Amino acid sequence: MVRKTTKRFQTLAIGWMLAVIVCLSPGIPGAVAQEGPAGYGLVIHGGAGTISRKNMTPEREAAYRAKLTDALEKGQSVLTAGGSALNAVEAVINLLEDSPLFNAGKGAVFTAQGTNELDASIMDGRTRNAGAVAGVRHIRNPISLARLVMEKSPHVMLSGDGAEIFAGLQGMDLVPQSYFFTRRRWESLRQRIRQEGARQSGSAAEEHGTVGTVALDRDGNLAAGTSTGGMTYKQYGRIGDSPVIGAGTYANNKTCAVSATGYGEYFIRNVVSYDISAQMEYRGLSLREAAAEVIMNKLPALGGTGGVIAIDANGNIAMPFNTSGMYRGYALENGTPVVKIYRDE
Amino acid sequence: MVRKTTKRFQTLAIGWMLAVIVCLSPGIPGAVAQEGPAGYGLVIHGGAGTISRKNMTPEREAAYRAKLTDALEKGQSVLTAGGSALNAVEAVINLLEDSPLFNAGKGAVFTAQGTNELDASIMDGRTRNAGAVAGVRHIRNPISLARLVMEKSPHVMLSGDGAEIFAGLQGMDLVPQSYFFTRRRWESLRQRIRQEGARQSGSAAEEHGTVGTVALDRDGNLAAGTSTGGMTYKQYGRIGDSPVIGAGTYANNKTCAVSATGYGEYFIRNVVSYDISAQMEYRGLSLREAAAEVIMNKLPALGGTGGVIAIDANGNIAMPFNTSGMYRGYALENGTPVVKIYRDE
Repeated sequence: MVRKTTKRFQTLAIGWMLAVIVCLSPGIPGAVAQEGPAGYGLVIHGGAGTISRKNMTPEREAAYRAKLTDALEKGQSVLTAGGSALNAVEAVINLLEDSPLFNAGKGAVFTAQGTNELDASIMDGRTRNAGAVAGVRHIRNPISLARLVMEKSPHVMLSGDGAEIFAGLQGMDLVPQSYFFTRRRWESLRQRIRQEGARQSGSAAEEHGTVGTVALDRDGNLAAGTSTGGMTYKQYGRIGDSPVIGAGTYANNKTCAVSATGYGEYFIRNVVSYDISAQMEYRGLSLREAAAEVIMNKLPALGGTGGVIAIDANGNIAMPFNTSGMYRGYALENGTPVVKIYRDE
Repeated sequence: MVRKTTKRFQTLAIGWMLAVIVCLSPGIPGAVAQEGPAGYGLVIHGGAGTISRKNMTPEREAAYRAKLTDALEKGQSVLTAGGSALNAVEAVINLLEDSPLFNAGKGAVFTAQGTNELDASIMDGRTRNAGAVAGVRHIRNPISLARLVMEKSPHVMLSGDGAEIFAGLQGMDLVPQSYFFTRRRWESLRQRIRQEGARQSGSAAEEHGTVGTVALDRDGNLAAGTSTGGMTYKQYGRIGDSPVIGAGTYANNKTCAVSATGYGEYFIRNVVSYDISAQMEYRGLSLREAAAEVIMNKLPALGGTGGVIAIDANGNIAMPFNTSGMYRGYALENGTPVVKIYRDE
């Protein structure tokens, strides 16, 4: 009996040792992690939704993969040079905002009135300071204006014309609305107007376009940022989760940095980004467990669709989503950027 | 030995029984609580800040106490008649919005441009649905518009002119800006303009006017609402915490209902209202412990001033604040309304 127990214990111990070795080795799927103070990390998303191979042309898929790779390399160059997580987040999002591929900046969708109204927010995990703008129409890079709000005003959230007056006072150039015109988004609006009458604005089946970046720099500081054009056919000055600190964006050196993309109303009601931090801090969950709990359990329980990207202070990352796809990718120090689109990747 | 243990057990048991009796008895200071399915509860605030006896006239103090008592009685009448927590929250806040005493609705402060721009939000703890409006100028009762956003739109947060177009489509009357003119708030703006040049907008020393209500109805449902005129000399379309779900307002039947008042930027960065819920749910803290932890420890650590009112599903209440005063009060089923202003009450 004693012998049997000892043997069982030995078997268990060997099993545990193997598990520990496997978990610590690099490149294991589902356990992307790095250790050590000198390692940085970067995760990006370009929106989640009903993204499927059958709705994608090879050319378009290649364009998305190339731009997401560019973005990760941009972030790596900032972080390799010793740049801050905040600088990396802003630089990467600027690059995505300047691309017509994503629903943010240049590629923003149109409102029901045929205008473009953009939202963005950024948060510094070191100070837990934050900045956000909602409903701006003439700002080429809303994430950069959100950063100015954070650093150059006593406020966290500015909106509409007022936010643009602040931008002007800070020396930021305004762009005309025509800057945001893209044929693809205009056709989406026209199609949506034809469908209208049958339903209200906002549908869980739509593609949730938004861009976001979270980063850990070599000093161990975290930052998160999110930028979006909102929903096609957006009405009534609707504000989604992207500019709402705690919902679309959150960063705290103590826990993690998170950027969300999805059906914004559900992300606000679930306080998604902060909830992931709270479950790490108060329940002792890992980043991966906390992010999965919120995106795969709590959010769908209310009916919410979408995903998040997240990174913790040890460089562990998570990219859960409950839709068929999410444009996403990550890059760790000395690693090749990894880009994914579909759920089965 | 057996005998000794039995005796010890008896002593312990008697102690526990006494403790239980004490806890269940009404009127114990620091343990405002009620049990049983038929008991409702209601807590209100009318803003926190540098409220001191030396800056207060007897007439003004009496007016505040009378209006806060009216508000509690209004809520009691709704809840006694079997009305929902949501109805109580809306009715009580309507009454406070219609009074010139508070910085919400009629008594809203002026922006730097001499306009009035109001924010409000409401959340239903049963469904965790929510509604909010930011920067509305022609809405007499912003909390009622927030409720319409929650119940009659697929959105959570609407802003500016768009929110007012939605209000009109819902049959809500718009009021002219002159409705919000009060001599007292206009003088505050004039004084502030004279002071300007010396400092930026926003000061922790200011009075944080906002109104809020949290309620538990006889069906065990929780609701929370908050309404404000923002800060005097508000600029750039600034949005504070009041319309931000998770920051200024949060309700969840599983935990609690919370409404905040204070220097809004710090409440957004700390995700104050949801953090109280999260500390109850994930750390197992009581309502009182969670609210005190956030308002007396975490918020001041970043430099934030203000307070919250909160109620849990058992009718326990909390009203912590870290300023010299907070207009506040509560009413429990079959109880007389209790109103307080200063810290030493």
